[in-house]
Amino acid sequence: MSRAVLPSQPAVGIDVGGQGVKAVLVDDQGTILKRWSDRDASAEGRSVDGVISRVAAAVAALSAPANAPLGVAVPGFFDTRRGVVCSSPNFPTWRDVPLRALLGDRLGRSVVIDNDANAAVAGEAWVGAACGLRDVLLITLGTGVGTGFLVNGALLRGARGAAGEGGHLVIRPGGRLCGCGQLGCLETYASGPGIAVTAADVWGDDAPSTAAGVFEAFAGGDPRAAEVVARFTDDLATGIAQMLHLFAPEAVVLGGGVAASMSRFQERLEARLRSAALPTSAADVFPLRVATLGGSAGAVGAAWLALQCPRSGSK
Amino acid sequence: MSRAVLPSQPAVGIDVGGQGVKAVLVDDQGTILKRWSDRDASAEGRSVDGVISRVAAAVAALSAPANAPLGVAVPGFFDTRRGVVCSSPNFPTWRDVPLRALLGDRLGRSVVIDNDANAAVAGEAWVGAACGLRDVLLITLGTGVGTGFLVNGALLRGARGAAGEGGHLVIRPGGRLCGCGQLGCLETYASGPGIAVTAADVWGDDAPSTAAGVFEAFAGGDPRAAEVVARFTDDLATGIAQMLHLFAPEAVVLGGGVAASMSRFQERLEARLRSAALPTSAADVFPLRVATLGGSAGAVGAAWLALQCPRSGSK
Repeated sequence: MSRAVLPSQPAVGIDVGGQGVKAVLVDDQGTILKRWSDRDASAEGRSVDGVISRVAAAVAALSAPANAPLGVAVPGFFDTRRGVVCSSPNFPTWRDVPLRALLGDRLGRSVVIDNDANAAVAGEAWVGAACGLRDVLLITLGTGVGTGFLVNGALLRGARGAAGEGGHLVIRPGGRLCGCGQLGCLETYASGPGIAVTAADVWGDDAPSTAAGVFEAFAGGDPRAAEVVARFTDDLATGIAQMLHLFAPEAVVLGGGVAASMSRFQERLEARLRSAALPTSAADVFPLRVATLGGSAGAVGAAWLALQCPRSGSK
Repeated sequence: MSRAVLPSQPAVGIDVGGQGVKAVLVDDQGTILKRWSDRDASAEGRSVDGVISRVAAAVAALSAPANAPLGVAVPGFFDTRRGVVCSSPNFPTWRDVPLRALLGDRLGRSVVIDNDANAAVAGEAWVGAACGLRDVLLITLGTGVGTGFLVNGALLRGARGAAGEGGHLVIRPGGRLCGCGQLGCLETYASGPGIAVTAADVWGDDAPSTAAGVFEAFAGGDPRAAEVVARFTDDLATGIAQMLHLFAPEAVVLGGGVAASMSRFQERLEARLRSAALPTSAADVFPLRVATLGGSAGAVGAAWLALQCPRSGSK
């Protein structure tokens, strides 16, 4: 992945999640110069006006230079060509929000918007776990399962920016109902809540209520936890294998809260993946990598996107 | 998809299949100037030496100018970075064949090699059913199920050229055994032979032995054929939906022998696909398109690949 070509050009990257905003000011080498964050999960804070005000507050708090372009990452389904957030699980009231134009008008600077998983893979390929690679799959295992794809050094966006929804690959036809309306999506099994549902299936009422609790019990030798981890790694390997068949990347990076327990399941996951993937499509992906930018990947990647985008005038 | 930039530069494209070789000489606008083909399914003709000799014969028969670059499409698993055919279902004796170097040495001209489905999507996006589009999915439904992806105007190849194996997406976990070793691949249900297997399941001994026979019986109102077509369209829609989740292209083009019957199943396939795909990822793909270059898509696309590839010296 090539670094930004403009010398000494700072950029602002902002990752807007359901719980809070994370913002960074970075230079064109990806070095974080300043950080800022808020926490606000209120309905007002998650409204369109609320988010725009919080982004404006972040830009002001970072004392970003007037010429610093702004990249904003938001979870959801996008039409990046038009700069529109079509819908977002984290912002349920949003429908076809022209976020790029709204932010450009408010802030008077160049704005790029993209999906949070796209921003995160850009960040990890810029200065993180896949630094310098050009064909990278990032899978974020958290509240949901997000995927971002770097293809030949550029983000995979599809015709309008809706590409890269690997969390909605159907891995168990007729399986669990997903928020997207399908049955059996990867997200319903391999997200944190998905793992907790499996734990409740296996364990009954006294199951751990979180994925972290499951992995802790697994480390302690609990056979029920071992069963949950076995199912999770099978399902995740199935999902990753389908993505490898299509993308055959140089690296697979796992991020998000669940990936914090990667040491507990990496060996089994890799064994299942070697079995489930075509050898040619998985030739370069072992060992699987853990994201290194943590919660900053989306904000750093959003800044990279802003630096990549050709600008004309102030927005 | 941008047209070749070199003015009046002819190129040779050759599609090497299990049954024969198809070759074209095209100009840099994709106009076919000459055609040549052979038919040879013998073991000798499908050996590495046999294929190289037949490609050389095709180039000679086309009286290709010495400066015309050569693109060769072959079915199989590739390492395009090294110019190697790792394996091929149509050429069972081939193992890690350095085809690009062998052809370059023999012919003394610039050579590009790629997967036949990649070449076909390049051809259809150059001068065929997806002319001028930049994000295109081609699905070839024939002896197998091949897929080729154009992403932002470039072929999806992955780290080494092994990307784009959509025929091996698992759509029925634990289902039919595929030649790749997996169970339940799309190819085992949506290829011509896969449809014939479904027909035998539904019908018993007097089932049509070919997909064309099934579609003919379906047109005649046979309820067993209707059941086979229903299963086929369900399975194909499931597979296409997974690819749309990841790629969200501008167009989906169906080619190969089975697509010749597209008018018989297009309506039902589109209805199932609208139900199975995320709305944002399928926004641009209706109506589905039928490939227009027919059996020439691979050869024409191979020529396009040759024109795109920067050259240095004679190979």
